Amino acid sequence: MKKIIIGVMGPGEKAKDYERENAYQLGKLIAKQGWVLLTGGRNVGVMQSAMEGAKSLKGLTIGVLPDRNLNNMSPFVDIPIITDLGNARNNINVLSSDVIIACGLGLGTVSEISLALKNNKKVILLTDHDLGIRFFQSLTKDNLFIAHSPEEVVKLIECLLLRE
Amino acid sequence: MKKIIIGVMGPGEKAKDYERENAYQLGKLIAKQGWVLLTGGRNVGVMQSAMEGAKSLKGLTIGVLPDRNLNNMSPFVDIPIITDLGNARNNINVLSSDVIIACGLGLGTVSEISLALKNNKKVILLTDHDLGIRFFQSLTKDNLFIAHSPEEVVKLIECLLLRE
Amino acid sequence: MKKIIIGVMGPGEKAKDYERENAYQLGKLIAKQGWVLLTGGRNVGVMQSAMEGAKSLKGLTIGVLPDRNLNNMSPFVDIPIITDLGNARNNINVLSSDVIIACGLGLGTVSEISLALKNNKKVILLTDHDLGIRFFQSLTKDNLFIAHSPEEVVKLIECLLLRE
Amino acid sequence: MKKIIIGVMGPGEKAKDYERENAYQLGKLIAKQGWVLLTGGRNVGVMQSAMEGAKSLKGLTIGVLPDRNLNNMSPFVDIPIITDLGNARNNINVLSSDVIIACGLGLGTVSEISLALKNNKKVILLTDHDLGIRFFQSLTKDNLFIAHSPEEVVKLIECLLLRE
Repeated sequence: MKKIIIGVMGPGEKAKDYERENAYQLGKLIAKQGWVLLTGGRNVGVMQSAMEGAKSLKGLTIGVLPDRNLNNMSPFVDIPIITDLGNARNNINVLSSDVIIACGLGLGTVSEISLALKNNKKVILLTDHDLGIRFFQSLTKDNLFIAHSPEEVVKLIECLLLRE
Repeated sequence: MKKIIIGVMGPGEKAKDYERENAYQLGKLIAKQGWVLLTGGRNVGVMQSAMEGAKSLKGLTIGVLPDRNLNNMSPFVDIPIITDLGNARNNINVLSSDVIIACGLGLGTVSEISLALKNNKKVILLTDHDLGIRFFQSLTKDNLFIAHSPEEVVKLIECLLLRE
Repeated sequence: MKKIIIGVMGPGEKAKDYERENAYQLGKLIAKQGWVLLTGGRNVGVMQSAMEGAKSLKGLTIGVLPDRNLNNMSPFVDIPIITDLGNARNNINVLSSDVIIACGLGLGTVSEISLALKNNKKVILLTDHDLGIRFFQSLTKDNLFIAHSPEEVVKLIECLLLRE
Repeated sequence: MKKIIIGVMGPGEKAKDYERENAYQLGKLIAKQGWVLLTGGRNVGVMQSAMEGAKSLKGLTIGVLPDRNLNNMSPFVDIPIITDLGNARNNINVLSSDVIIACGLGLGTVSEISLALKNNKKVILLTDHDLGIRFFQSLTKDNLFIAHSPEEVVKLIECLLLRE
């Protein structure tokens, strides 16, 4: 039976310390709820920290990888989906997640937020990038949510899943 | 830590009875070994039967789906990967599997076997289509294996995984 | 020998009148320069108007289509590239263009701008969405250019192509 | 207005001399008819020879490339479509062609033939691989045609296009 899958997206090499800490907490909280964590699968930044957090509580992790070689795969991935699609795999990340969390805002993350919203997926922004928040709010009011801590993100997800 | 993922490919709507029975047995045996089952995720043919078999023993199942709507998703999928790539998703099926089993030979399956072999993936043919077996043997000798029963498939996989 | 390909991206169904007028002018000016026009290929909005403009001067047009059925293809497409990739085709749009023009800002366009910048492609924004301009400027300073008219866009492209 | 696009597929590095000669002739004949040639775009084998043939008569050539870097692009490509999809781009090759010619049979070509037939595209086999011909004939009778020379291929295409 279909499991609940939560996608955590965010910067890779350029992730800031607090974004990686948020991602680690998100990973832990997602695992604690029994949800499956989905990320871009690489061994850097928000992806890596979220999956490390989830594995610290024995959560299940999916990594949707851009390349066909696995040199950059995070050791915290249980189920690698090898796409060999480059950044086109971003669309799979968001389509496969029941809810998408943007933990920080890099160029890749921006593409994922916009693809998610275009596909009517629920997106939670966890970032202090005010301009970015206002920009996305100017594009759409539907399916876009703002949170200020990993704990608030998880409460929001619980509400969103109840509504369905 | 990365789990072992076994892909079972084969005809959908046009699957024959014995192909679906083989697929069901394969699903059960894969689950019994603690391996993860990956299929094309739809609710017909070899995909459906393999996942039903795996779930009968509480195995974990991944369905890599071609469409963005989930009308045709098998109820035996635990983790749907929603690609919206049409048949281009066949390449993801084979790249994401440690070993690929072709349980029957339809046009889609033929594309998966050839993409798998092109990517140096190990492929096991479980089919009575002699012409097909000889055809693929004429294209390559590497990574191509023939089995005559689900049990033999699983023994082969055990040997192949040991070698790595 | 490789032709120069200019991508024009922008809203589809939700395009505003002045965006479609800009797109039509862009199409004409691109054709006049002897450049090839690339768009998302559908029969609405910025895509449709840009290609109609290009064909009014007998320019060559490529449409990179999201679906496998051609019901929504613009009649002004010379070369349809049928991807059946849904929105994942946005990455192909930007990778295949020498310079990308964002003529307006919808969710799909935002994904294309961010994918283009992530791939180190040159992007010209032609929009009165100030917040959007500032947002992208906050993400990167490289490869991002602002123009205020179709004529200015074309002058910018001429300079960018000279530099290469 | 949509141009007629003919796809020529076949082995890359492993192409035999007579396959490359056939491909060169096919490219010339396709250009002579005023059709657009589509290939996988790399600078080897059947792709390269077909495009060289087409350019010798100033035909228009499209190369649908698997990678995002252009190191392996044929100099005879007019319009490179940069997919960064790896072998998943094979599905785009066949969907974008009105008729597909398999000029030889490698693993990649086999995936293209099967994807084409699965998508109800017309496929012409130009090969002396009898086993391969019989294998595909065993899978489907629809849309599959056999030719013995580049000239015969072109006559077949003329008939197929008339019928539509």
